[in-house]
Amino acid sequence: MTAIAATDVLLARAYLSRVGEPGNVGLWLFVREVGPVAAMAALRAERASSRLLAETAARRAAADPEADLASADRHGLRLVVPESDEWPHFAFAALQAATAPLARAYRKGDYVRKESGEPVPPLALWVRGPGDLTAAAVRSVGIVGARAASPYGEHVTADFAFGLARREVVVVSGGAYGIDAVAHRAALAADGATILVSAGGLDRAYPTGNAALYERVAETGLLVSESPPGCAPQRRRFLTRNRLIAALSTGVVVVEAAARSGALNTAMHARTLGRPVLAVPGPVTSAMSVGCHDLLRREDDAAVLVTCVDDVLAVVGGAGEGLVERAKPTDFVRSELDGLSPTARAVFDGLHALRFSRPDEIAVRCGVTALEVIRTLPALDAAGLLETSDAGYRVAARVRAATGKR
Amino acid sequence: MTAIAATDVLLARAYLSRVGEPGNVGLWLFVREVGPVAAMAALRAERASSRLLAETAARRAAADPEADLASADRHGLRLVVPESDEWPHFAFAALQAATAPLARAYRKGDYVRKESGEPVPPLALWVRGPGDLTAAAVRSVGIVGARAASPYGEHVTADFAFGLARREVVVVSGGAYGIDAVAHRAALAADGATILVSAGGLDRAYPTGNAALYERVAETGLLVSESPPGCAPQRRRFLTRNRLIAALSTGVVVVEAAARSGALNTAMHARTLGRPVLAVPGPVTSAMSVGCHDLLRREDDAAVLVTCVDDVLAVVGGAGEGLVERAKPTDFVRSELDGLSPTARAVFDGLHALRFSRPDEIAVRCGVTALEVIRTLPALDAAGLLETSDAGYRVAARVRAATGKR
Repeated sequence: MTAIAATDVLLARAYLSRVGEPGNVGLWLFVREVGPVAAMAALRAERASSRLLAETAARRAAADPEADLASADRHGLRLVVPESDEWPHFAFAALQAATAPLARAYRKGDYVRKESGEPVPPLALWVRGPGDLTAAAVRSVGIVGARAASPYGEHVTADFAFGLARREVVVVSGGAYGIDAVAHRAALAADGATILVSAGGLDRAYPTGNAALYERVAETGLLVSESPPGCAPQRRRFLTRNRLIAALSTGVVVVEAAARSGALNTAMHARTLGRPVLAVPGPVTSAMSVGCHDLLRREDDAAVLVTCVDDVLAVVGGAGEGLVERAKPTDFVRSELDGLSPTARAVFDGLHALRFSRPDEIAVRCGVTALEVIRTLPALDAAGLLETSDAGYRVAARVRAATGKR
Repeated sequence: MTAIAATDVLLARAYLSRVGEPGNVGLWLFVREVGPVAAMAALRAERASSRLLAETAARRAAADPEADLASADRHGLRLVVPESDEWPHFAFAALQAATAPLARAYRKGDYVRKESGEPVPPLALWVRGPGDLTAAAVRSVGIVGARAASPYGEHVTADFAFGLARREVVVVSGGAYGIDAVAHRAALAADGATILVSAGGLDRAYPTGNAALYERVAETGLLVSESPPGCAPQRRRFLTRNRLIAALSTGVVVVEAAARSGALNTAMHARTLGRPVLAVPGPVTSAMSVGCHDLLRREDDAAVLVTCVDDVLAVVGGAGEGLVERAKPTDFVRSELDGLSPTARAVFDGLHALRFSRPDEIAVRCGVTALEVIRTLPALDAAGLLETSDAGYRVAARVRAATGKR
């Protein structure tokens, strides 16, 4: 599918993602300076600044990147690193730019970490799902909001996420209860692509009540986390996680947010990264709209008031439009198809778009034995590339839409 | 109460308000140039521009200002003119300023009347009620919106109007069904002052279903119209009427408005006059909030998003604050008290603030015969200065609040 980074780089980045807290400016600068492999070696040999050694002390002794990569493999995760093709350089350019002033302060020795999370690029991303992160993060909208969403907020979220997904916009959110979960579900319901950025390791869902949602997102979209398997989501990680939601989105829509909602932190990150912040107004009698109204009347950088999908597209539709050919969820499908074995690809090509076929019919069309067809179909099914009925198999609806296969 | 303009001026302005359509730039310029008495004489003698003669032709023949003034008197109306103390020069200064470019165009002969209503000062106002228009228009907020208001809109309107009235802000609106009516009623419920600007003559309520509301406003607040008694409200008069709501308000709050609501016309007038436009957000799923959301996201001169009474006060509270002593609804009451006959004033002074008294008790306290007390009490009652119960009479709540009478 994509160029795979060298094993030593993967090992080093797995190690760094384990020992450093997400958003650590000093560690990111150190890695940029000496490279990931040398950075790991230096930390292991305790040949780094006392600050860095102190900040990584808690996890250095127990860090075992081989075990983390093996665990990731068991959980179907891959490690996406800046050295691999799937790294969303375009999306993270804003993070890197926003890091510059922090880097200056850090070098001058007067850097104090902000509790709200720093806009530092991640060192690596643990990823699960068939989507391609680079492609997905080009035409994408973050939809975030209250966990304790109102029926109104859930209704609007479903409407927006479904409509955007139908318009080939990738829906990015955080997998929480409330607005987040509705956004992911509605994007899935629209046969669209969705990215769930988790604050903890992807070996488990957080909250556990959304485990089924995580699985569904992993089937057709992307689960993303900065933390290796086994990391529990902590408050600080939610705040640093939010910068990734902002960075991976062309713009961020806040649907509902109470006065001190985490969604406002995501909006703050979006502003820092130059991403448009969009907010949905609501009844002034609803505590869940207070944060949105506050965003809408900020004196500087007020959010854009949006009431429908077209409003959102008017703001973010232009962003990345030159890259739209690359960005379309089409690419999710293309990369899945490119990843198939020659036999599986032949079997896929033997499927009808609309009419269901039996395995023996498919075998005739694709020149593969019926036994091989029968062996291959489950993999195509698992990849979400086909639909089944009593009458047989055909191309999945989202694949028809993406490839124009008729 | 206030200095009364000379009879010939009243007659002339009554005539002019009958023959000219509200918002007629040419007529207003002509009257400013030659004065109202000469303007009437000229129109009657057909010694005016052909344009003015054409524009007033329809009503000149039948105009009978003596009859209009007599009819007004029968309906309890007074004619407030620029030559009288009660004329709200301060409030109308913005109208006069906004007329300047129209005047230039008119003189150059390339003036075309806008259907949305021109910001021309009125020639005279027909007024009913105990309030003083000058005082009332200094610390005042227009609350306007949809006739087909939603329960949400009515709830917010009641909350705002009640709260503003309690904070001694005069509530200005148009007497229509929906938001307007709720605004007036909530202000009355708060023992506050309210101004109802009607699009038709004040001999009748429009809509007739709000006749009781008109009566209640007339008891303690002000009914205002540019049109003499007998004038039916026409579409164009609603649009020109809206400029008066804007002019008489320090700021205008649009609570609910459909996409093409008349409330948006009032907001347009407010912008023209430099009055802040405030809008209440609502559910994006409600057609009644579409106009508000459009106001909130205008690229130039976007409305201020308000969610509560304090938000409104933060925007308009400062305006006229130097004049607040003059503007307080207190002055409604003061001017009522100043307007009383010496006997009526003595009887009023004989009332207890909280304890109900019988007429004979009042007589003892104020040194007026019991018969005179009994004769005078109905007038005080009609003026809204007292409250009655089986136990007798006492000072009305709003008067207690305004005068601090204990």
